[in-house]
Amino acid sequence: MKVTFLGTSGSLPTKKRGQPAIHLQYKDESMLWDCGEGTQRQLKHTDISPFKINSAYITHLHADHLIGLAGLIQSLQFLDRKEKLEIYGPKGIDRYVEFFKNWDHFNLEFEIDTIEIRKGRIKEREDYEVEAFPVKHSTPSYGFIFKEKPSINLNKEKLKELDLLNHPKCSELKEKGEIEHKGNKIKLEDVKEPEKEGRKVVYSGDTKPCKELERAAENSDLLIVDSTFGEDHKEKSIEYGHGEAKGMAEIAKKANVGKLVLTHFSNRYKDERELEKEAREVFEESYAAEDFMEIEI
Amino acid sequence: MKVTFLGTSGSLPTKKRGQPAIHLQYKDESMLWDCGEGTQRQLKHTDISPFKINSAYITHLHADHLIGLAGLIQSLQFLDRKEKLEIYGPKGIDRYVEFFKNWDHFNLEFEIDTIEIRKGRIKEREDYEVEAFPVKHSTPSYGFIFKEKPSINLNKEKLKELDLLNHPKCSELKEKGEIEHKGNKIKLEDVKEPEKEGRKVVYSGDTKPCKELERAAENSDLLIVDSTFGEDHKEKSIEYGHGEAKGMAEIAKKANVGKLVLTHFSNRYKDERELEKEAREVFEESYAAEDFMEIEI
Repeated sequence: MKVTFLGTSGSLPTKKRGQPAIHLQYKDESMLWDCGEGTQRQLKHTDISPFKINSAYITHLHADHLIGLAGLIQSLQFLDRKEKLEIYGPKGIDRYVEFFKNWDHFNLEFEIDTIEIRKGRIKEREDYEVEAFPVKHSTPSYGFIFKEKPSINLNKEKLKELDLLNHPKCSELKEKGEIEHKGNKIKLEDVKEPEKEGRKVVYSGDTKPCKELERAAENSDLLIVDSTFGEDHKEKSIEYGHGEAKGMAEIAKKANVGKLVLTHFSNRYKDERELEKEAREVFEESYAAEDFMEIEI
Repeated sequence: MKVTFLGTSGSLPTKKRGQPAIHLQYKDESMLWDCGEGTQRQLKHTDISPFKINSAYITHLHADHLIGLAGLIQSLQFLDRKEKLEIYGPKGIDRYVEFFKNWDHFNLEFEIDTIEIRKGRIKEREDYEVEAFPVKHSTPSYGFIFKEKPSINLNKEKLKELDLLNHPKCSELKEKGEIEHKGNKIKLEDVKEPEKEGRKVVYSGDTKPCKELERAAENSDLLIVDSTFGEDHKEKSIEYGHGEAKGMAEIAKKANVGKLVLTHFSNRYKDERELEKEAREVFEESYAAEDFMEIEI
């Protein structure tokens, strides 16, 4: 599983930072979390094919998290995409997508499914799910949790004993929890390995530190947070509903997070390592994001 | 007068080329010609302040020439702009701008004047005018002519003789064409220098070579053209309504142009100097545009 930062600026892009966008690759699933202006061009600096993106999850409807969708959609059409694209976002996302779907000049021929989200599970597959949780910003906003489902692995020694190693009935056993084999009743719980927790990645979107984020972040491998401000603008961060490095680090610590990545920096900071330093005073595994930074999980 | 290329790709941006946008600075007038996705970020690589842009002229409603307007408008609002922004474009531009003006999340407080254009003069000031001319693309499209008005300069020796050097009545003379001074009737034509032609810059927008462009380009100091293709795709260029380097160079030659700049390159060309070379076989003063290239006129 790989997370790639495509844009790490706040509302205003800078020379070295594009507007917010994060890419997650999990097996064949290629998804965007937010899609600021210029995301399609940022992709050109990576080995991610825009063509293979299946879904885009938008945290809220502020332009800097959203505007890149239009250009991406248009370019996918130019490239003659056929597969469906799923777009998730708060109430109103449909109006945005519909505007461009109906823009005469787009001539869209592939399907776009727009899903207006609420709190809770918004996507489920056999091997993972995505959950949305409400956060505290200046407009209705969500964070996202990517959660891999625990994988069921069978103990090879025990399978050998039962003459079941590599046997087609193993799938049935995983599915049904019990099978009959050579006259014996075999229960899943007797042959399976201890369950391994799936990987978990959490993204705050734009928000000030809040309980909802703390709950969502619990035991995540990677927590990506709004760190628009540092301690020098702590009050402003609360007023505007934005993150502040140290406050976010406190959440990461409480929530027993593996790694904290700060992003969405205000352009007032010339060196974002300062914010990283503030966070590390509280939580050592804190990192300031850079455009095109990659994290393997 | 300075022309800066902000984006020189075709429909799909590349690593080194942003989507179409050109900036013209003429005295205090700071204008954009087209505004592809990412234009606001391209500006960060120049000394042009987005804050001082007075107007944007959009050649046609294809997304790659238009999408950057939304982000630019949002950022101007963040920067607390107060001055009006003028946006010119073909029928339909108003629907695009209105959508974003009314997008709840924009909270626009400055005025935007959207002007749906037709062929002919679309902007006039004392010292320059902008004219739109129809071109041949796959959707209603215009090219633009920036034309400085001829300047009236008075002959200093003659003014001295008439005791008028630096006299306030000089403005009246320029305006009315005739004044009375110390009992003499003085006519403008008797004291003015030979008229100096104003500077002329022409931009084709997206088009195949056509008569309208040839007429518009006549005697221009700078002609900027769609050069999506080279000779290897001459037929495709005609089919898609796009420029082809050599065909455009022929227009430049016929129209007695000062300098020809090719832009809007298809990403199939790895080295656009090849297209420049093709154009130079016909018209020596041909140049392939690069992002951030500046031309003083």
